[in-house]
Amino acid sequence: MAEQKATNVHWHEGEVNREDRAHLLGQKGATIWFTGLSGSGKSTVAVALEQALLREGKLAYRLDGDNVRMGLNKNLGFSAEDRTENIRRIGEASKLFADAGILCLNSFISPYIADRDIVRHLHDEGNLAFIEVFVDVSLDEAEKRDPKGLYKKARAGEIKNFTGIDDPYEAPVNPEIHLHTDNMTLDEEVDIIMAALRQRGLLSA
Amino acid sequence: MAEQKATNVHWHEGEVNREDRAHLLGQKGATIWFTGLSGSGKSTVAVALEQALLREGKLAYRLDGDNVRMGLNKNLGFSAEDRTENIRRIGEASKLFADAGILCLNSFISPYIADRDIVRHLHDEGNLAFIEVFVDVSLDEAEKRDPKGLYKKARAGEIKNFTGIDDPYEAPVNPEIHLHTDNMTLDEEVDIIMAALRQRGLLSA
Repeated sequence: MAEQKATNVHWHEGEVNREDRAHLLGQKGATIWFTGLSGSGKSTVAVALEQALLREGKLAYRLDGDNVRMGLNKNLGFSAEDRTENIRRIGEASKLFADAGILCLNSFISPYIADRDIVRHLHDEGNLAFIEVFVDVSLDEAEKRDPKGLYKKARAGEIKNFTGIDDPYEAPVNPEIHLHTDNMTLDEEVDIIMAALRQRGLLSA
Repeated sequence: MAEQKATNVHWHEGEVNREDRAHLLGQKGATIWFTGLSGSGKSTVAVALEQALLREGKLAYRLDGDNVRMGLNKNLGFSAEDRTENIRRIGEASKLFADAGILCLNSFISPYIADRDIVRHLHDEGNLAFIEVFVDVSLDEAEKRDPKGLYKKARAGEIKNFTGIDDPYEAPVNPEIHLHTDNMTLDEEVDIIMAALRQRGLLSA
């Protein structure tokens, strides 16, 4: 037993840390948080960014409604309390990903400033970068696109508490990145984000 | 708008997938789940494994009480219901890590077969490897080690529902890896796990 214990101590001294993972990956973990109205193009730009990162050999992972609402948050509904808990859990999971060295791309409407600020604060506490990307679109334009037909249903009263129609969207006051999507191409949007990540030193160890 | 939409479709066609991430990292994501009594050495072997993986250029990340109970699961207590939800959320988070391409190392007592089987099932559904590692130690030996003085407190009645004392530990029936820690060195334990990961093809793309 004495020998085993000594060995344990030795191992513990050299625990793998965040810096080790950064050097292995050639990048620093961070959370990139896309917020905006339904139809603003949050997921589209997140997908395009993930591809641009892969082309540079960078590891990203997207959290979105598909892989979160069916899994980690499947026991949450759409009450105010559950919506807040939904964003909180996503924020905590994203913080773990960022600590692991990954660029975690989150696209959620996340309409409330208070909820997004909770996630920002979690990252500040952990000394991890939190990049809020405001995917800004006019309600008119979002409703014109209506890719999932949700605005039409909301206007018809078939969906209640729909953000932008009968529930508020609180725009970020001072986001790290503000994309005016009415006047930008997708390539331009991706370039702006890539430049911001590079400038913050996140694309190197 | 027409041009923008066409671009979006193009991007979506090439979404980054699990295989892309595996090729980038030179490994396949998986969950390695360490279960065993308090004092069995779960965390010690997980830490040592993480180091061994790093030496081979492989990315791992450990989930444990420290980074989960203070964050993702901080609103959970120790009722039977909360313990099950604790393991479920860890399992879902780990599944996301595995999907992201990471070897996720989880060390939790996780005393109930049903809870561990839920996590296994989640991974099966997602076509992701789940490697259950039974860190087997006799209660006598664990109580002799008592690194945190918890058994002493449990025997004195200061801690209730302590696994192995007044709460059951349900040993895995057919774990992927069974470590008989009473008769093994830490290096041997790590070697066994590394061999198992290699054999399953998890350490290459």
